[in-house]
Amino acid sequence: MAYQPSPSRLEAFSDGVIAVIITIMVLEFKVPVENGWAGLRTLAPTLGVYLLSFVFTGIYWVNHHHLIDRLKHVDALILWANLGWLFCLSLLPFFTNYMVEKHVDSSSVAVYAVLLFLTGLSFTLLQKASARLLRHTAETDPEELALQAAEVLKGKISVAMYVIAMGLAYVRPWLGLADAGLVTVMWIVPTMGLEHRDKG
Amino acid sequence: MAYQPSPSRLEAFSDGVIAVIITIMVLEFKVPVENGWAGLRTLAPTLGVYLLSFVFTGIYWVNHHHLIDRLKHVDALILWANLGWLFCLSLLPFFTNYMVEKHVDSSSVAVYAVLLFLTGLSFTLLQKASARLLRHTAETDPEELALQAAEVLKGKISVAMYVIAMGLAYVRPWLGLADAGLVTVMWIVPTMGLEHRDKG
Amino acid sequence: MAYQPSPSRLEAFSDGVIAVIITIMVLEFKVPVENGWAGLRTLAPTLGVYLLSFVFTGIYWVNHHHLIDRLKHVDALILWANLGWLFCLSLLPFFTNYMVEKHVDSSSVAVYAVLLFLTGLSFTLLQKASARLLRHTAETDPEELALQAAEVLKGKISVAMYVIAMGLAYVRPWLGLADAGLVTVMWIVPTMGLEHRDKG
Amino acid sequence: MAYQPSPSRLEAFSDGVIAVIITIMVLEFKVPVENGWAGLRTLAPTLGVYLLSFVFTGIYWVNHHHLIDRLKHVDALILWANLGWLFCLSLLPFFTNYMVEKHVDSSSVAVYAVLLFLTGLSFTLLQKASARLLRHTAETDPEELALQAAEVLKGKISVAMYVIAMGLAYVRPWLGLADAGLVTVMWIVPTMGLEHRDKG
Repeated sequence: MAYQPSPSRLEAFSDGVIAVIITIMVLEFKVPVENGWAGLRTLAPTLGVYLLSFVFTGIYWVNHHHLIDRLKHVDALILWANLGWLFCLSLLPFFTNYMVEKHVDSSSVAVYAVLLFLTGLSFTLLQKASARLLRHTAETDPEELALQAAEVLKGKISVAMYVIAMGLAYVRPWLGLADAGLVTVMWIVPTMGLEHRDKG
Repeated sequence: MAYQPSPSRLEAFSDGVIAVIITIMVLEFKVPVENGWAGLRTLAPTLGVYLLSFVFTGIYWVNHHHLIDRLKHVDALILWANLGWLFCLSLLPFFTNYMVEKHVDSSSVAVYAVLLFLTGLSFTLLQKASARLLRHTAETDPEELALQAAEVLKGKISVAMYVIAMGLAYVRPWLGLADAGLVTVMWIVPTMGLEHRDKG
Repeated sequence: MAYQPSPSRLEAFSDGVIAVIITIMVLEFKVPVENGWAGLRTLAPTLGVYLLSFVFTGIYWVNHHHLIDRLKHVDALILWANLGWLFCLSLLPFFTNYMVEKHVDSSSVAVYAVLLFLTGLSFTLLQKASARLLRHTAETDPEELALQAAEVLKGKISVAMYVIAMGLAYVRPWLGLADAGLVTVMWIVPTMGLEHRDKG
Repeated sequence: MAYQPSPSRLEAFSDGVIAVIITIMVLEFKVPVENGWAGLRTLAPTLGVYLLSFVFTGIYWVNHHHLIDRLKHVDALILWANLGWLFCLSLLPFFTNYMVEKHVDSSSVAVYAVLLFLTGLSFTLLQKASARLLRHTAETDPEELALQAAEVLKGKISVAMYVIAMGLAYVRPWLGLADAGLVTVMWIVPTMGLEHRDKG
């Protein structure tokens, strides 16, 4: 029988990678030359962009658990789809910093949107690989399948909005970022709502 | 039913982020140009500031366990409050380094105190989110609630002392740091005492 | 009785190291001086080389689990062989970056191939140490031994191909990298196949 | 009752810090300006010094498990002794790099030896805190106490040898490093022997 790592191991490894990603991003920040609050004010765009990348990664962390916790075991396709997704995610600190160093110009926002798009795409592949395994092994109940379908749809909308962000970056760079930020809000708000309804 | 990650997973992820934070801070240190012990002596403020940030993070690590271990499960509010707290904490290496590069001047100490304040505030929010869940689910005993109330109070005093540190930074930068250091001592000493009394 | 750390602890530690390795590699990337897509195009070789190192590390992550999960306990030889292998692997970010900074010239590709070779060799030692323990403790079934033998053979072929890559680097640097990439494909494809056959 | 984190959590956190420490050390390496093997040869002292720091950290990783696995629970003294030891260890990447940048001169080797000494000292404190808890709770058998006493003695010899290394650094820098390397060998060889005797 082929080797099948446990979902919990896959999750722990992915968590490790994500923990490093969101922490090393700040290593790229440059201390402003100017002293005092005048210099600190120049850090504002850097902090804003970092916040976006941080929340982007945080959302994936939450959703990755959603996805992997459902599985009883992992096959090679999931393993490699997961690594592909981590690869995209690992490029985030570089392209966040790239955007900052290029003073958030159109092409830097566009390439950032390309990366968000590719990360979203690779996560969709991971969702598909996971859905395929669940179907094969019949370890599903209808509620779980419905929840998963809703998430896949939301994933597709996100990916489409990242494509739009690429274009918007050339109209106004900040429009592209606002579009990416909107996707973020779309992912945070409903989870909050869901919890509250549970309690009610 | 909405997805609820286990407290142990939240704890493991936070631990990973904290482990990276306290370790990468040294990457920002600059090797002094001067050779020998004369050059090494110039590292003293860097090491002192690093020690403060290290202990600050270490205290949060301990208290985070206090907080999360009590929970049987995690809701979305706790999840996002936790990410907000990690976001503040992840900025610590940068602003520690900022203070070093600005030769511990008034505004660099003040902005460092602002960060300590925001981190304390976000941790208070996390405590509130956790207390809310414990009340909802009635998983508490009176002793646990009392311990938690004492910690919330201590948290509020800390946050107030960080506000004072911002002001003191403009009187003398080192006064601001001493105030921040005092908060640290306030958190370490009682835990020591508590343990000893247990044994007696 | 001598101390024997559990295999799961060894695995968790190795996972931590691997998670950091694949994530910090991007910290070495330089933001191109040129603005826009012209500058971004100059990143292509960097990204290509990073992809190779990422997949190389990913394959080891998968195979390391294969190896360690079979063990019931760990002896000192495995412990040190594992640390030796992690040492080689930890040099990967530096030599990946070295190759990029030297514009993928012959000697930089050759020294990269030397590192891949040494990492492969140290993993072979780890496999031997593990096989020795399995024989000693008779915790094996024939199928597991056969699987292990197949992997050891594949490991030897890889190591030989890395030696060839060192030579090819002097004919054409990209030939050396293509050879290293071929080893990668050899490790990914069969696992995929194995899984599919299992399902059939 | 006071909060007592589990030993396994303490171990996992320490493992995370150690994993980051040994991996980020390579980030400090500088790519030599000279091309080809002539430039690569200038990396030899860097790699040698890195190997020493890597093995030094690896030995602590092994011995830390020895120490913590014996405990059933953790008190505040162990918690803070552990953080103190991690603080010393976290300075290793910086002072390893310091030694490389100062071309392994006398004072850089001496300050490196000071750090090894302080790390050893803080680990001795951790051992004492752990022994104190074991005595209090009577969770010990004679064999375990004997093993622990032997390790404490070895720890004291190591600490003494690091003091000697500080002096030797002023005779010849490499003598100081050789002395530090000898301590390393003293820790690796016996564990190997112990395992073999177990099997006989």
